[in-house]
Amino acid sequence: MNKNSSNIMALAPNTSNKRETVCIFGTGDFGRALGHKMIQSGYPVVYGSRSTQISNLIPKDAEVLSHAEAAQKAAIIIIAIQRQHYNFLIPLAEILHGKVLVDISNNLKLNQYPESNAEYLAQLLPGSRVVKAFNTVSAWALQSGTLDASRQVFVCGDDVEAKQMVMNIVRALSLTPLDKGSLLAAQEIENYPLQLFPIWKFPIFLSLGLTAFFFFYCLALDVIYTYIYERNNFSFFIAITIPNRVCPVMALILLALVYLPGIFAAIIQLYRGTKYRRFPDWLDKWMLCRKQLGLIALAFASLHVVFTLVTPMRAFVSWRTSKGIISQVLNNKTEPLSNTNAWISDSYLALGILGFFLFVLLGITSLPSVSNNVNWREFRFVQSKLGYLALILCTAHTLVYGGKWFLSPSAYKWYLPNIYILALIVPCAVLVVKFVLIFPCVDKPLTQIRQGWERNPKHSEQSNYIINKSAV
Amino acid sequence: MNKNSSNIMALAPNTSNKRETVCIFGTGDFGRALGHKMIQSGYPVVYGSRSTQISNLIPKDAEVLSHAEAAQKAAIIIIAIQRQHYNFLIPLAEILHGKVLVDISNNLKLNQYPESNAEYLAQLLPGSRVVKAFNTVSAWALQSGTLDASRQVFVCGDDVEAKQMVMNIVRALSLTPLDKGSLLAAQEIENYPLQLFPIWKFPIFLSLGLTAFFFFYCLALDVIYTYIYERNNFSFFIAITIPNRVCPVMALILLALVYLPGIFAAIIQLYRGTKYRRFPDWLDKWMLCRKQLGLIALAFASLHVVFTLVTPMRAFVSWRTSKGIISQVLNNKTEPLSNTNAWISDSYLALGILGFFLFVLLGITSLPSVSNNVNWREFRFVQSKLGYLALILCTAHTLVYGGKWFLSPSAYKWYLPNIYILALIVPCAVLVVKFVLIFPCVDKPLTQIRQGWERNPKHSEQSNYIINKSAV
Amino acid sequence: MNKNSSNIMALAPNTSNKRETVCIFGTGDFGRALGHKMIQSGYPVVYGSRSTQISNLIPKDAEVLSHAEAAQKAAIIIIAIQRQHYNFLIPLAEILHGKVLVDISNNLKLNQYPESNAEYLAQLLPGSRVVKAFNTVSAWALQSGTLDASRQVFVCGDDVEAKQMVMNIVRALSLTPLDKGSLLAAQEIENYPLQLFPIWKFPIFLSLGLTAFFFFYCLALDVIYTYIYERNNFSFFIAITIPNRVCPVMALILLALVYLPGIFAAIIQLYRGTKYRRFPDWLDKWMLCRKQLGLIALAFASLHVVFTLVTPMRAFVSWRTSKGIISQVLNNKTEPLSNTNAWISDSYLALGILGFFLFVLLGITSLPSVSNNVNWREFRFVQSKLGYLALILCTAHTLVYGGKWFLSPSAYKWYLPNIYILALIVPCAVLVVKFVLIFPCVDKPLTQIRQGWERNPKHSEQSNYIINKSAV
Repeated sequence: MNKNSSNIMALAPNTSNKRETVCIFGTGDFGRALGHKMIQSGYPVVYGSRSTQISNLIPKDAEVLSHAEAAQKAAIIIIAIQRQHYNFLIPLAEILHGKVLVDISNNLKLNQYPESNAEYLAQLLPGSRVVKAFNTVSAWALQSGTLDASRQVFVCGDDVEAKQMVMNIVRALSLTPLDKGSLLAAQEIENYPLQLFPIWKFPIFLSLGLTAFFFFYCLALDVIYTYIYERNNFSFFIAITIPNRVCPVMALILLALVYLPGIFAAIIQLYRGTKYRRFPDWLDKWMLCRKQLGLIALAFASLHVVFTLVTPMRAFVSWRTSKGIISQVLNNKTEPLSNTNAWISDSYLALGILGFFLFVLLGITSLPSVSNNVNWREFRFVQSKLGYLALILCTAHTLVYGGKWFLSPSAYKWYLPNIYILALIVPCAVLVVKFVLIFPCVDKPLTQIRQGWERNPKHSEQSNYIINKSAV
Repeated sequence: MNKNSSNIMALAPNTSNKRETVCIFGTGDFGRALGHKMIQSGYPVVYGSRSTQISNLIPKDAEVLSHAEAAQKAAIIIIAIQRQHYNFLIPLAEILHGKVLVDISNNLKLNQYPESNAEYLAQLLPGSRVVKAFNTVSAWALQSGTLDASRQVFVCGDDVEAKQMVMNIVRALSLTPLDKGSLLAAQEIENYPLQLFPIWKFPIFLSLGLTAFFFFYCLALDVIYTYIYERNNFSFFIAITIPNRVCPVMALILLALVYLPGIFAAIIQLYRGTKYRRFPDWLDKWMLCRKQLGLIALAFASLHVVFTLVTPMRAFVSWRTSKGIISQVLNNKTEPLSNTNAWISDSYLALGILGFFLFVLLGITSLPSVSNNVNWREFRFVQSKLGYLALILCTAHTLVYGGKWFLSPSAYKWYLPNIYILALIVPCAVLVVKFVLIFPCVDKPLTQIRQGWERNPKHSEQSNYIINKSAV
Repeated sequence: MNKNSSNIMALAPNTSNKRETVCIFGTGDFGRALGHKMIQSGYPVVYGSRSTQISNLIPKDAEVLSHAEAAQKAAIIIIAIQRQHYNFLIPLAEILHGKVLVDISNNLKLNQYPESNAEYLAQLLPGSRVVKAFNTVSAWALQSGTLDASRQVFVCGDDVEAKQMVMNIVRALSLTPLDKGSLLAAQEIENYPLQLFPIWKFPIFLSLGLTAFFFFYCLALDVIYTYIYERNNFSFFIAITIPNRVCPVMALILLALVYLPGIFAAIIQLYRGTKYRRFPDWLDKWMLCRKQLGLIALAFASLHVVFTLVTPMRAFVSWRTSKGIISQVLNNKTEPLSNTNAWISDSYLALGILGFFLFVLLGITSLPSVSNNVNWREFRFVQSKLGYLALILCTAHTLVYGGKWFLSPSAYKWYLPNIYILALIVPCAVLVVKFVLIFPCVDKPLTQIRQGWERNPKHSEQSNYIINKSAV
């Protein structure tokens, strides 16, 4: 019903409708779409336009008047015109005095103007009550009623009553208003629709960088080295073998990077003896993108799982298997089952499966609709306890799998360590330090600090108020 | 807590409670469940009933009176009786004058009556303020407090104030009201609980039809042909081999069908030179079910992945592998590794894995709670850019895998093309036309048209107002 | 934007702000975090504190006064102090008369005190209007603005108007208020943040118990028996082989346990001839945790799928395969393809894949954001019809896979039945009884009973009002 309702939904009859008239300045795409939707929701709509002629595109039930006439008919005026043309509102200042002006404009790039459009409008017309709203909704989504994307409408403004009036309209249009505070938030709201996954930016660039590094590292050791010294052309390793070496390494390192800032925070708090001082900026930023790092790690882990599972389907692998069996036959010697090998192979597979299972569980609980249904204690239990368990299992998986290469000199081609050794540095460091931190002699003072105790209370005098973000 | 709270939740003491009394006409299942829930939320409830005897099933704290007496005690009266019995309300018209009547009735089939029950009620009692609500909630869900299904309550009515009163009750019962406009929307709201995935209907029937066609196509070529001409009984292909041929074909075709209507829309807009004219109806409908087509395509792709991954576990496959190895041994000839084969096998696997990975990403972002947290630009980036990338990867996967059969005459059993060739027609067409459309000489006028420019402004005079749905 | 907005969000200018002053008693972590957030949302905040000196940690724009002075400035007072110190409020009773007191306290363990903190506060200050709120939100989440966990704020109180005022503040802080009724609900709300997945407890303990039992059962039959009687050390079976036997058994049994209570309910209703009597308590509880049982079953099924798919990668399996091929070569006899084996192997794989596919579909529709978008009929269709289909497919998968062992005497080591036979008892029983229940001669009276018909209406006289939970 959500999908196509607006097409069917009837216009409200005039008789018993008590909704207040809304005025819209501007007859562009968005102004028309918004007006159409409002009429459907029972609001009488009047357009203010320079020319009252171009009425054929405007919703049938709407009136079109001059700006001054239209403004007089309504308490709320939606300014569906571009910032460059705001000047023409100045002569109307008297009529607009006391009215609620809804700024719905967007810019073409981030921070295009020194002040937000809504603040600029409020400066031009100091007697009006300016509210920022609707800029995050697309005209297309409004009109088609599909709204696959967000239904959230961010609202801000200095006048609480005006904001309430606009939020009521938002609710009547089946959208969800979200109060973002005073008009100073308008800049941020105007930047919002221009953003392309801002908190994902750092984790994604980090992952791309590391992935490229490990890819070329493997390429050098597995393809180029083999070609030069063993005359084997294994260029097809680029398609599956190397990605399947890079993916698990990336997954493990990124998962460890999710838990590393918490370790740093604990050490800093222990060292300072107080939680009432701001963390360094890089640590704050790192902590805010832990969820993203974790989800990218999960993506790499999933790719690793699928890449591994297709192994038996690869031409190279079936050729290698056949070769092994044929050589056994020709040498007339059947290899016995090595119990150690069976144990190693089965246990690294089992560790990997369990680790991946917990990892997926973490991913599912980070879905907004799931995390909304758990309390704080449950959320911390899953993200912290189960998260560390997943890290331990994945590290053990890598250790058991790659263990045999650590001491074998043939694994050090060009004196470079195998990629498994590189992958284990960060996770092992995190786990070792975490292990130290849960010792009672370290854990007790840390818990005290986090409950507000200060080793040296003078410190707090210098600090601004901030709750340290290491609480998780 | 959401789950079992209502069982524990205490009834409000009478002393300080300021909620207004609610009257319920009818003591059936739903009337009782609603009354019970309202009492829990602090509303005094009075039942209107023909007989005041059958009180043992009614919530303890509720009063039971005659209809007239009960109605006088409350401003809001919930009509929990069936449409057939609405007539008996006519004698009460005077008492009900000005009261808010909440119609909660449902019908047994879609569009059972010419007008909705709520409109019928409003006609019978023109002096009352009728509001449609609560019909989408089940008595069982209300009572048990589990509410695993939807918490949304659609509300509509001509009187805004009456609607607000009802929506406040909805909120007090921990449900989410959704304002659907005037009483004309009641028909749609009454049809809603009777619907069984209406927007899924066309995509599912299309998929079933195509699946059946491809299944019998494969059955003819792979099982029947082989049986007739080669005397091999491969009937067990029905279980895995053929489904694993049909699934990828379906996934690829359906994914291409997601992007085909956008192509059509662009061509139509370019041809017409304006976006201010309605698309043909079939295109409109097609565009509204793109998400469903995409999700069904994802289901087929997932099945294809699992069917492929179990391949090495199949008795037939291990028999074929053994046979190959044994024949190599007996002929005393070891086949060398073909670099070309290794490249082909590895690259179609890698392409498929990456395509499927993007496909799953598209599926996750179409989850309501995820798409609610992205802005319009991010949503379009994922659904359009990543979607096309997934289509390209999946098409390449099929091309590399099936490529060797295109030119081989043995692949044309009964002069019919192999199924891979059929699968590639739509996706290749979509990709070729899309490639043409992104050329600057085509893209520039199209962008202008979508921004509102018209080649021949006269056209718009004839058209109704509509924003073309090709904006995505 | 949701993530880091609060850091950037500007404080509201004093000029045009019309929000009412809020007073906060207590300058602890939570009091400060809440005050900070309120100032960001435009509320003037005044702190009541014993000492007005420790002002350096308090938000800059807040005033700090004595308790009495602060209380006089605001209509809403947030009590951010611990229950033990509530006594000191008694001298302020006169000033606090008629004010809205918001109790935000939490306890350290479930049901720590006989009455909830909020009720205790209401007893101490009978003239004040106590509202319970905010206790489910963490100070850290409020301050950092991340709010990855729940945004829901449970609110309860006896005074409707006071509750509305608090809920407006909750909304202004971008949180979602949820009205839980009168102050008697405070105990439950105070227990909420202390809970750790309460409805998951029984399903998880049941699963752990059954898993342990089946694990040791398999260990005895597969590892110990083999070691004693066949002198084979298969200890490495512990890593993959045994888990992959336990997981599918658990998944099947738990899935059957999801549908078993519905069967019991139907039988009880048929026997009693009425739906107006409460089910036994164990059945009620069982029914409320069906979703959790189903999700745990899905987890086991997923593990089974991955454990199965890694089979070809196991050292033991490739050793066994090689041994088989080599023995064929050495005996110079090539085994022909057994059509029956191919059929059995392919069909149990296909049945399992389809069953798992439906199972995953059930899991996805139980995500809160998906189930919110389907109506009651659709939800029942998926959970009941598709659920039974999944159960049938999974049972058939096990029957076809394990079928050959039923009649083979070698499968009965130590006279104990194979684990597959144990696994099939519950699902087969459920399916057989369900099959009986859908016969018209049984289904018709059951449907009548569920629509309210009673065989022996006297019964209802004794019963309290309850809608039986078997409706689903």
